[in-house]
Amino acid sequence: MRNLKMTIAYVGTAYSGWQIQPHRPTIQGVLEERLSRMLPDRPRLAGAGRTDAGVHARGQVANFATACAIPPAGLRRGLNAILPPDIAVLEVEEAPPEFHARANARAKDYRYRIVVGEVVSPFDAPFVLQVRGGLDVAAMRAAAGRLLGTHDFSSFCLAGTEVESRVRTLHLSEVAVEGPAIEYRVRGEGFLRHMVRTIVGTLVDVGKGRRRPEEIGAILAARDRRAAGPSAAARGLVLDRVIYGGDR
Amino acid sequence: MRNLKMTIAYVGTAYSGWQIQPHRPTIQGVLEERLSRMLPDRPRLAGAGRTDAGVHARGQVANFATACAIPPAGLRRGLNAILPPDIAVLEVEEAPPEFHARANARAKDYRYRIVVGEVVSPFDAPFVLQVRGGLDVAAMRAAAGRLLGTHDFSSFCLAGTEVESRVRTLHLSEVAVEGPAIEYRVRGEGFLRHMVRTIVGTLVDVGKGRRRPEEIGAILAARDRRAAGPSAAARGLVLDRVIYGGDR
Repeated sequence: MRNLKMTIAYVGTAYSGWQIQPHRPTIQGVLEERLSRMLPDRPRLAGAGRTDAGVHARGQVANFATACAIPPAGLRRGLNAILPPDIAVLEVEEAPPEFHARANARAKDYRYRIVVGEVVSPFDAPFVLQVRGGLDVAAMRAAAGRLLGTHDFSSFCLAGTEVESRVRTLHLSEVAVEGPAIEYRVRGEGFLRHMVRTIVGTLVDVGKGRRRPEEIGAILAARDRRAAGPSAAARGLVLDRVIYGGDR
Repeated sequence: MRNLKMTIAYVGTAYSGWQIQPHRPTIQGVLEERLSRMLPDRPRLAGAGRTDAGVHARGQVANFATACAIPPAGLRRGLNAILPPDIAVLEVEEAPPEFHARANARAKDYRYRIVVGEVVSPFDAPFVLQVRGGLDVAAMRAAAGRLLGTHDFSSFCLAGTEVESRVRTLHLSEVAVEGPAIEYRVRGEGFLRHMVRTIVGTLVDVGKGRRRPEEIGAILAARDRRAAGPSAAARGLVLDRVIYGGDR
């Protein structure tokens, strides 16, 4: 058996997220179905991150085992020819037998885009959160910085999520101004469900002056989802990159 | 009666073009219907350019007469609140009574995007033509330059189009490399049906070495649609801007 690693980009608007579910369009479901048309077996994909409904990816990673002999470039070409235009396979590579896209991921980069203003360009609309009335970017930056490092992120985790530990480490947590957009960029070793979107919802509260950056410490300490702000809309979020050992 | 000028952006993917048609979704149709919800009368929009099915716009212009007293900013806000996310009104302005979006347009800017390569990002897919196997950009540039100025563009016009004259003037006709994309940019006083897309289809033929830039003169001289290349896909085309007297 070969172990193949795929890097995938998708516009998540039309999908109920990455993870396969019966009777719903999912990225994993479409990819497995298309792969099964090319391979003798229907492979099971292991994805690095389970993006939620409506979340996009520029560099999702998944691996699968197959007995097929098709070279990586041929698999990529064949898959892209039959995939819908909102999903593309950017790369297919041979991976060592022990490689696992989720278990071996050292870190993931997400970014979230916000447009401040009265009008959102229809070219941006599926990819941004619109905020009216201005945001205090300096306050958002200060709040984002206070999330850096290792914390119990229970306050930023979808209530009821069952997981062994809610302690996570962020290596990057910054707010950047990108033309007419404000972008939140985060790199973490792992993320809880709705974590990035809840961080962004809380940063928007800070930007609107509803909370002060100094409150971040107390929000973390509360370990209670009700302490943080609302979860920002899925459409602004993109899984940018998954980082493995040996990556630059 | 007031005369109002609107600047409009849209992603044309889901529409049968600008111009209103029975039983089909059109940009003009959606705008008029939404306007009629806000105004006492259903206004008739005059658009500067009739973009085809699937063509996009970043700066379409239209005007309409109305007896309503709503200020321009209120009309814009109200319209954007009820428009689908793939159409946005960027600006509403009071115009002189004699202003007519089509008749007064001095020039229009279009751009067309091409991506060369094996894989198209799903974020770009609705907005580009994919070309495999490389393009000779220098040859395309030379060919584009030969279209500058005043010519009979019959060879680049949808066959059967009824129009008084097929003579048009191009003030800009250039090929630019923009990251992974090749962009054709054109400014003209007016355009025939399918003219930009047929120019692009012919430039792609030149880029692939199927025709030489020197053949452009003979293609123009033929005044026959069959002399030019195929019409490139609508999705790569954007109406960027409409220029009026007094614009910078």
